[in-house]
Amino acid sequence: MKLLKETCAKINELDEAVMQEAKARQDSLTKPPGSLGKLEDIAIKLAGMSGSVFNKVDNKVHIVMAGDHGVVEEGVSAFPQEVTPQMVLNFVNGGAAINVLANQVGAEVKIVDMGVATDLESDKVINKKIRKGTDNMVKGPAMSREEAIAALEAGIEVVNKEINSGANLIGTGEMGIGNTTPSSAIIATVTDIDLNKLVGPGTGIDSERLEHKKEVIKKAVAINDPDVSDGIDILSAVGGFEIGGMAGVMIGAAAHGVPVIVDGLISAAAALIATRIHKDVFNYLLPSHRSTEPGHINILEEIGLEPILDLNMRLGEGTGAVLAMDVVEAATRIIEDMATFEEASVSNKG
Amino acid sequence: MKLLKETCAKINELDEAVMQEAKARQDSLTKPPGSLGKLEDIAIKLAGMSGSVFNKVDNKVHIVMAGDHGVVEEGVSAFPQEVTPQMVLNFVNGGAAINVLANQVGAEVKIVDMGVATDLESDKVINKKIRKGTDNMVKGPAMSREEAIAALEAGIEVVNKEINSGANLIGTGEMGIGNTTPSSAIIATVTDIDLNKLVGPGTGIDSERLEHKKEVIKKAVAINDPDVSDGIDILSAVGGFEIGGMAGVMIGAAAHGVPVIVDGLISAAAALIATRIHKDVFNYLLPSHRSTEPGHINILEEIGLEPILDLNMRLGEGTGAVLAMDVVEAATRIIEDMATFEEASVSNKG
Repeated sequence: MKLLKETCAKINELDEAVMQEAKARQDSLTKPPGSLGKLEDIAIKLAGMSGSVFNKVDNKVHIVMAGDHGVVEEGVSAFPQEVTPQMVLNFVNGGAAINVLANQVGAEVKIVDMGVATDLESDKVINKKIRKGTDNMVKGPAMSREEAIAALEAGIEVVNKEINSGANLIGTGEMGIGNTTPSSAIIATVTDIDLNKLVGPGTGIDSERLEHKKEVIKKAVAINDPDVSDGIDILSAVGGFEIGGMAGVMIGAAAHGVPVIVDGLISAAAALIATRIHKDVFNYLLPSHRSTEPGHINILEEIGLEPILDLNMRLGEGTGAVLAMDVVEAATRIIEDMATFEEASVSNKG
Repeated sequence: MKLLKETCAKINELDEAVMQEAKARQDSLTKPPGSLGKLEDIAIKLAGMSGSVFNKVDNKVHIVMAGDHGVVEEGVSAFPQEVTPQMVLNFVNGGAAINVLANQVGAEVKIVDMGVATDLESDKVINKKIRKGTDNMVKGPAMSREEAIAALEAGIEVVNKEINSGANLIGTGEMGIGNTTPSSAIIATVTDIDLNKLVGPGTGIDSERLEHKKEVIKKAVAINDPDVSDGIDILSAVGGFEIGGMAGVMIGAAAHGVPVIVDGLISAAAALIATRIHKDVFNYLLPSHRSTEPGHINILEEIGLEPILDLNMRLGEGTGAVLAMDVVEAATRIIEDMATFEEASVSNKG
């Protein structure tokens, strides 16, 4: 609990004065004011995070957290649980979507075992295993409060190490068969969105199993009755180890003033946990894509983020977050590299 | 007319057999089928364009067409006409948004004078000037039919040269004070969208001038009464030289089987002209962003394109098209570089 408390204590509000300065700079550049939309907003937000008008995001690290879920015994996923370690190995060998996209944007991928159900024998996986999979949340809490805190602190440790080695932009992603179920349970706990609008097919279950998935979520929330105001309680009741790890990454990045990119449904559920633990974590979150998982857009609205990519994606791994890194970098270059009206001798608005 | 006709004769339908092959490849990769959404669709479309499952877009050229508009004497723009050549000079000097974003994605920027109202003295500008600005379209056609054809053929010549030098992905952008007015007139001609829903503030006019802009567009369409089925007639009646040039770029790229990216309102208006001239140009168009200009999303729907970036941008220059190049490249890498279920020994859907 000490690391979590100390880390939360370091999270600041955005520096409004520097954001004003960044806004003035944007308005001096050779374009109609505001015409670069979210590219301008992102650069202004980064200025607020770092306290400097100009920022670099040239050291990109994408953290993929893996974990398994006791609730899969209820039959909520289209893929068997063995796929979690198999995909982790695929990450290690560079064959997954996240590897390909990270290469494209020049990001380094770090893979963390937060609670995969089998032993992973690879020195390329960071071992932060809390336990071999959560408990089945329809029968009681997914994990103990101590385990929830350990998961959060493991995430903080991982991101601290990366930022101390120079990372200035963090992506969040995950792998865990069944993890849209706990993520949807987290959203159902925090928001009052109807489960029919919220719960989607994940990796691709049929409509019968979809109805069953909704029942499972309903039951898990009812039986554990988490305290909506307490992020740690929600995480332990209906969360997952990788979700806790991702929330920890967000909290840790926020404490360093480093931007961290939210991905799809699971990452957004983690953001909801993180912002319940410390509301100012929000200041350091950047959006990425709009997932086709139906609950995703609702949770982004709840957090206060607007997606920047609309690619009909629903893969996870942080594939949307990594693609958004290019847009974030573009934003940092616009504010720094564009000519002003004065420099370029261009007439301003008449 | 000869070049235009010959070029149109080379435009093919997409190769359905190769697209099926590309789809089968996508479904063999280590991800739930379809879970990479538009990244999968783009790679499949590229396969249909080239006739090969795997494609490279590593030689990116972004073509910015500049032109002036007689209709600015009606007071439809927030910026004075002198800004067109000033911004062209800004492009040449690398200080504009399009330069910064093209650097970010590794695209070469080519600047073409299609009809700027003043003489441009720079050997870095490709001179295809049809005339020093169009005529005021509220008083008659913006240009003659011969000039419209010349603008289209100039675009074809420019893109032919780039593709013959190795370009395998083309972006389209523009600069021309006042050009949201002819673009909106083109859309109003082709679609039955209400002008109130269609016409936006462009670079930032107030609500009084916005009402005036709508009146101007209504008058221009009424007085010229273009033949909706004839792209060349629409272009000459209510178009612009840079709009014609951009349409020519799209037609030329299509004839080579090379993908060409549509940007915002003006580029989409050019796409509408191009697809009226030859409907199969559509096969070679890729979308980029959703502009905040109100008519943009309607025209994309009319053409049949779904935007992939949602950045609240409305700058022009092809800023959205260039940002989308990264996503297109990501799509080409996914289909080629990801491991299959078999290669990675990952269990498929149960």
